[in-house]
Amino acid sequence: MAVRIDLNISLDGVAMPTGQTPEDPMGEDWGRLVADYAATRTFHERVLHDTSGAGTTGVDDRYASAYFDDIGAEIMGAAMFGLHTYPDDPDWRGWWGDEPPFHVPVFVLTHRERPPLEFANGTRFEFLATSTADVLARAHEVAGGADIRIGGGVSVARDFLAAGLVDRLHVGIVPIVLGRGVRLWDDLREFDLGYEVTSEVAESGVIHVTFSR
Amino acid sequence: MAVRIDLNISLDGVAMPTGQTPEDPMGEDWGRLVADYAATRTFHERVLHDTSGAGTTGVDDRYASAYFDDIGAEIMGAAMFGLHTYPDDPDWRGWWGDEPPFHVPVFVLTHRERPPLEFANGTRFEFLATSTADVLARAHEVAGGADIRIGGGVSVARDFLAAGLVDRLHVGIVPIVLGRGVRLWDDLREFDLGYEVTSEVAESGVIHVTFSR
Repeated sequence: MAVRIDLNISLDGVAMPTGQTPEDPMGEDWGRLVADYAATRTFHERVLHDTSGAGTTGVDDRYASAYFDDIGAEIMGAAMFGLHTYPDDPDWRGWWGDEPPFHVPVFVLTHRERPPLEFANGTRFEFLATSTADVLARAHEVAGGADIRIGGGVSVARDFLAAGLVDRLHVGIVPIVLGRGVRLWDDLREFDLGYEVTSEVAESGVIHVTFSR
Repeated sequence: MAVRIDLNISLDGVAMPTGQTPEDPMGEDWGRLVADYAATRTFHERVLHDTSGAGTTGVDDRYASAYFDDIGAEIMGAAMFGLHTYPDDPDWRGWWGDEPPFHVPVFVLTHRERPPLEFANGTRFEFLATSTADVLARAHEVAGGADIRIGGGVSVARDFLAAGLVDRLHVGIVPIVLGRGVRLWDDLREFDLGYEVTSEVAESGVIHVTFSR
């Protein structure tokens, strides 16, 4: 029943680039930040539904695959679901098409009321205006003993980290300097105390750092 | 004739902690930032003059030893020499006692005129008010074809990096979050373009990242 976060960040800690527009909803630097993750076989299979066997199978793929293991519920912020990009569109159903890669209940934190969204593959989005502790309690209720993932975005992840609610944080550090965007580590002084840290460098150059307790 | 920088930084990029006082001139978090470097055999021998064989001999020591290899001149800022901590003391001779671990000419960038300082071991401090490009040219003149190290502090290092004058940057990333202090990466957006990057995790958990061109 661990609470887990996985994020890609730049060397300067940027987890969410600037410059988002409806045409470029992830922002100008997103491609460099997720290139090695998006190149994995797991990403090809789970997100792109490409079962041709394409994609890398090294260290990056091992982390990508672990990302999907044993998750019983997910929590994300309104921005990650797309509600900041499409605030007035009642038909918006997220970025992921008809097969969102979650397959579990997903709680979206937002102050706008919306009816739940159900998908045939087991993904169910429920929209809530509540606290980190309360949404976590609700996620535990539906997770069936499996882990809970805080999907993002970075401000939601930081809220859970600052509240001491996270059991495992994995960051894939891409060795690039972005210099602008939302940084993960701000206001998390000495967050690391109380965690074990392990680090590993992938063939791609991405540095995988995991804090566990 | 490469221009080199080596720094220890936290995961959030802090290279110089806050809270410096004359009693604690390096600041509250310095100990955590340099603990694994200070534990190396090279540090024991070169900085503490401890030839008992004490100190670690793994990956951290390999980088510590390389730090001293083939340096013909060093450039540092006034703060690193101690002139911000002891601005009015004409007898201040640096932090390092009678055997500063440089053994080469050291150019200290400061706006206060001071006479040069000579030590028997070959270390010679010269105090200059000039530009990054000019001090680098003077360092080249005396380096005898060997490399030039930008010793620090972080703002001086950033000036040389931003000016594109650095051929090799090695950072020892300590997997801790400090949350305050002077960050290395600020204003260095896309500094990484044009460099090769390699990364390696030491036994201590320190992540050594090297940008070379």
